[in-house]
Amino acid sequence: MIEQLPDRLDRNACAELDAADSLARFRDRFLVDDAVVYLDGNSMGRLPRATVERLERMAEHEWGRILVRAWTEYGWMESPMRVGDSVAELIGAEQGEVLIAESTSVNLFKLIVSVLRARPGRRVVITERTNFPTDLYITSGATELLGCELRAVERAGIAEALDTDTALLTLTHVDYRTGERHDMGALTEAAHRAGALVLWDLSHSVGAVEIDLHRDGVDLAVGCGYKYLNGGPGAPAFLYVAAGLQRELANPIQGWLGHATPFTFEPEYRRAEGIRRWMSGSPSVLAIAALEVGVGIHLEAGARPVADKAALLTEVFMRLARARLSPLGFEVVTPDDPGRRGAQVSLRHDDGLAIVRAVTDRGVIADFRPPDLCRFGLAPLYTRFVDLWDAVERLAEVVETGMNRLPQYREEVAIP
Amino acid sequence: MIEQLPDRLDRNACAELDAADSLARFRDRFLVDDAVVYLDGNSMGRLPRATVERLERMAEHEWGRILVRAWTEYGWMESPMRVGDSVAELIGAEQGEVLIAESTSVNLFKLIVSVLRARPGRRVVITERTNFPTDLYITSGATELLGCELRAVERAGIAEALDTDTALLTLTHVDYRTGERHDMGALTEAAHRAGALVLWDLSHSVGAVEIDLHRDGVDLAVGCGYKYLNGGPGAPAFLYVAAGLQRELANPIQGWLGHATPFTFEPEYRRAEGIRRWMSGSPSVLAIAALEVGVGIHLEAGARPVADKAALLTEVFMRLARARLSPLGFEVVTPDDPGRRGAQVSLRHDDGLAIVRAVTDRGVIADFRPPDLCRFGLAPLYTRFVDLWDAVERLAEVVETGMNRLPQYREEVAIP
Repeated sequence: MIEQLPDRLDRNACAELDAADSLARFRDRFLVDDAVVYLDGNSMGRLPRATVERLERMAEHEWGRILVRAWTEYGWMESPMRVGDSVAELIGAEQGEVLIAESTSVNLFKLIVSVLRARPGRRVVITERTNFPTDLYITSGATELLGCELRAVERAGIAEALDTDTALLTLTHVDYRTGERHDMGALTEAAHRAGALVLWDLSHSVGAVEIDLHRDGVDLAVGCGYKYLNGGPGAPAFLYVAAGLQRELANPIQGWLGHATPFTFEPEYRRAEGIRRWMSGSPSVLAIAALEVGVGIHLEAGARPVADKAALLTEVFMRLARARLSPLGFEVVTPDDPGRRGAQVSLRHDDGLAIVRAVTDRGVIADFRPPDLCRFGLAPLYTRFVDLWDAVERLAEVVETGMNRLPQYREEVAIP
Repeated sequence: MIEQLPDRLDRNACAELDAADSLARFRDRFLVDDAVVYLDGNSMGRLPRATVERLERMAEHEWGRILVRAWTEYGWMESPMRVGDSVAELIGAEQGEVLIAESTSVNLFKLIVSVLRARPGRRVVITERTNFPTDLYITSGATELLGCELRAVERAGIAEALDTDTALLTLTHVDYRTGERHDMGALTEAAHRAGALVLWDLSHSVGAVEIDLHRDGVDLAVGCGYKYLNGGPGAPAFLYVAAGLQRELANPIQGWLGHATPFTFEPEYRRAEGIRRWMSGSPSVLAIAALEVGVGIHLEAGARPVADKAALLTEVFMRLARARLSPLGFEVVTPDDPGRRGAQVSLRHDDGLAIVRAVTDRGVIADFRPPDLCRFGLAPLYTRFVDLWDAVERLAEVVETGMNRLPQYREEVAIP
C-alpha cells in the first residue's frame, strides 16, 4: 500500500486515504471528539464506547445483584485466562499460553526470576541499555535478588553479548523513544543459539504491529493493556509463557489462585497446570472487563489490517513531517523501513518539550521523552490520515509563530 | 451495648436494634435487595451506589475526554497514595504509611522479601499453621527464594516459636475460618522482644474491627480491598510500612513508578522517598477509583462505630444460632469474647456445604470453608439485625425440612 501513496500528499490526499481505509469504521467505536487529534495512544489508548456500558453492567448487575456468585456464574474467575486467550490470537500465541495479570513490571519480575532459578548454570541477563526504564529496573532488581548479573549493552552489540553464561535475553520489541522495532525472529534465534531464553516486552507493539510469537519461537513475553489495546488507565497487563516451558518455570509469587485447587485451602502449595500457575492474588476483574472490550475490538478488526494501517499511517506522517517540519528544526528519528518501526513516529527537536506542550494546548495531544523527542502514537483503530495532516500543520504553526517560546511552556515540570 | 441486649431475642427485638442503630442509614448507600440476606461481605463486599456513577465519570469524562492528561490533572498518579492515606485513617496509621497496590499476595511477597534481605542474620519466618492459604504459599515461596525457612506453628505456640533466628512473624489478624481474632498488641510485642518484625494481614479485619497499628507498634501490614472495604471484585489491596522502616526496607519489584523521578527515564533505579517506593508498575486507577468510594463510606461512618456494630451483630447472631440451631447439629466456633473475634460468625455442621448451598438458593448468601464450616460475614454498614433473625430461621428451615439432602446440593464441586 505504501507503494501506492501519491507523490503529493496534501489534506485532500489524506482524506482520500481515509475514504479508502477499511478500518475507518472502527473510529466510531471509540469516544472521539473531532476537535482533538489524539496522538498519545501509545501512552494510553482511547475509551471504547462499549466499555462504559460494560462497566455499568459489571458493577450494577454482576457485582451489585449477582454478588459473590458471579465469580463462577459470570466467569470472573476465568477472565484472566479468557481474555488472555483473546490476546493470544493477536500475538500469534496458542490458547492457554497468555494470562492477564497485574502490571507489566510485576509480570517481568515473575518471569525473570523464574528463568534465573530454572537455569542455575547461567547467571547473566542481557538487555539493551536504552530499554524502557521499568524493564531495566525490574531486571536489575531481579538479578540482584538472585546474585546474578544484568548486562545492558548497546543495540548493535546485543547478538555478540550472548554467550554460555546468558540465561535470558530480554528486550522491548518497539523502542518507546524512537519507535524502532527489533527483528524479533533474528534476535530470538540468536538467543537460542547461545542456549538462552528470550523474553519480549510487547507493550509498545501489541495492537500496533504484526507479532507472531510462535513463528518466531518466542519463549516468554509480557505486554501492556492500556496502550494500543485500549484497556483503560492502569489496565492489567499480560504475560505469555510458551506451552513447552510452563512446567519447567515456577512463578515465585505463588499466591493462592496459582494453586491447583485454590478452594480446597490446602496448607501446601501445589502449582496449577498451565498458564493458571502464573496467577497470584485475586484478579482485578472489574479492570479485566474493561480490557476485554478493548481487546475484542482488535480481534474484530484483525491484527494484520491493524498492522498494515500502522505502516501506512507512520509512512504518511514521516513524509509530511519531512516536507513541512524538517525546515523548522525537526528530525525524523523513526526508521524508514516499516518493518523496523512501530505505530509511532518520533521527531527530535531541541525545543521538543515546549513544542509538545504548546501543540497540546492547540488540540494535538502528543508527548515528550527526554532529552529531545516528540512522540506521536498513531493508533490504527481511531487515527485518521487527515489527523496526521492537521497535526503536522499545527506543529509547524507552533514553531513558525514562536508559541513554544511562551513562558507557560517553559516551566520545569515533568509530564507523564 | 452487648450488656443491654434483651434476654429474649425475637424478630421484634432485632427490629428494635435496627431502629436504634446509628449506622442503619448507611445501608441505603449500597445497592440492596431486601429479598436477599447477604452474609458474604467477608468474601466480597456489596456495591456502593455511588461507585456506579464514579466509574461512569472516570470512564466517560476522565479517560474518554481528558485522556492521558488525567494522570496529573485528575490525580490518577497520586491515587495509590491518596486512597492509602484514607485507609491509614481506618487502621490507626499515619499519612504516608499506606499504599494501594496490586493484590494482598503480591504485597505480602514484596514485604516478606524485603524483610529477609534487610535482616540477613535472621533466617526464619514464623506463621500460624492455619493462616490463610495465600499467606502460607507466598511466605513459603519467598523464604524458599532466599534460602530461608518458614516455620508454621500452632496458634498456641506462636509466642514460644519466636527466637533470635526469627526475622519476621506474619499472621492474619482475623482467622478466615473461625473468625477468631489475634491479640495484635501482645503478639507484636512478643515479636519485638525477640528482635523480630511483625507483618499483619488485615484482610479479614479492616472495615470490620478496631485496628490501631500505631498503638500496637506494628511494623508492616497488608489488607484486602474487596471484602469489608467494598472496593469491588478483585479490588486492589493495600500495604502499610511504618515510617521508621521505610528507608531500611527495599521493594524487590522495583518498577518505574517506585523510582524517585520516574518521568526522567533514568537508566539507574533510585528509590523514591516514603511509601511511594513500594509502587511497581502503573496503578490500576480505574479499580482504585471504585475502591476509593468504598473506603470513603467507611471514613464517613467511622471505624469505631463500625467495630461496635460488628461486636453487636456477631453477639446477636451467636445467641440466635445457639438458641435455634444448636439442636439441629450446628456448633458456634467463633469466640464468645467480642474482642477476640471479627465481624464473622462460623458455625460447624457435618453437612455444612450442602446446607450453605441450600440456604443460598433461599436468599441467604453465606459461604463454606472445608471441612465443615459455614461462614457468615456480618458487614456492619449494610447488615441489619433482622437479617440475622431471618438467616437463622432459614437455616433452621433447611435442616428441619431436609432440603440439604436434595441431590443438587450434594454434587462434588468447590464453591469460591
